[in-house]
Amino acid sequence: MTTRRRSNCPISFTLDLIGDRWSLLILRDLVFGRARFYRQLLESGEGIATNVLAERLRRLERVGLLSKRRDPDDRKRFIYSLTPKGLDTLPILLEMILWGAKYDPRTAAPPEFVARLRKDRERVLAEVRARAEEK
Amino acid sequence: MTTRRRSNCPISFTLDLIGDRWSLLILRDLVFGRARFYRQLLESGEGIATNVLAERLRRLERVGLLSKRRDPDDRKRFIYSLTPKGLDTLPILLEMILWGAKYDPRTAAPPEFVARLRKDRERVLAEVRARAEEK
Repeated sequence: MTTRRRSNCPISFTLDLIGDRWSLLILRDLVFGRARFYRQLLESGEGIATNVLAERLRRLERVGLLSKRRDPDDRKRFIYSLTPKGLDTLPILLEMILWGAKYDPRTAAPPEFVARLRKDRERVLAEVRARAEEK
Repeated sequence: MTTRRRSNCPISFTLDLIGDRWSLLILRDLVFGRARFYRQLLESGEGIATNVLAERLRRLERVGLLSKRRDPDDRKRFIYSLTPKGLDTLPILLEMILWGAKYDPRTAAPPEFVARLRKDRERVLAEVRARAEEK
């Protein structure tokens, strides 16, 4: 992926940074708290290749959406976490959940979560964000 | 782009359909009403290649996000428009506008639109959708 700017349109800008098939899945795993380490991100279910994951993590760090620090319990590995700029992609992720849940007959989205999100979007957003920030 | 399903996650499903650097720009041009014809989509500002545009239009039609019909005023060309499934990507586009406008110092997003969107999201969503549906 290149980062060449295509226009000053805010949608185009966003897609230049995260408009590929993998970046938002990495952000998903960090936002919803299923992963903090490289290996967890690698084993996340969609079968991302290790070279693609490594490249996307470097890119997302370079454009300021995530940061990494050494794990104090195991100095050989890194803990990945979202910056405020990365956390701010959460509303985009939530809208993708609603769209996918509506149109995919095989969706794994939990119906009660989707129903709450539809009914009380701001509250769910605040809750998910607060949990993600704790990490 | 392939359409192979990677998982039943709703975010992954959404990205399988529109998670590339071009599809959401095509949807943007149709939603915000700047384009109805192939040539308009081609000249949209980000410099999409004609073969990429043709492939994306076929794909978006195949997965049910847009439809085309012959222009009654010029039977040689087609009018592209969004289906309800395509229109339902509007909240994703709006969140991308907010994110891009916040983080791009060179953003072309009109400040008064962004301010209204932040303050009164549901109303702006309804307005943009109503305008897009008229076409």
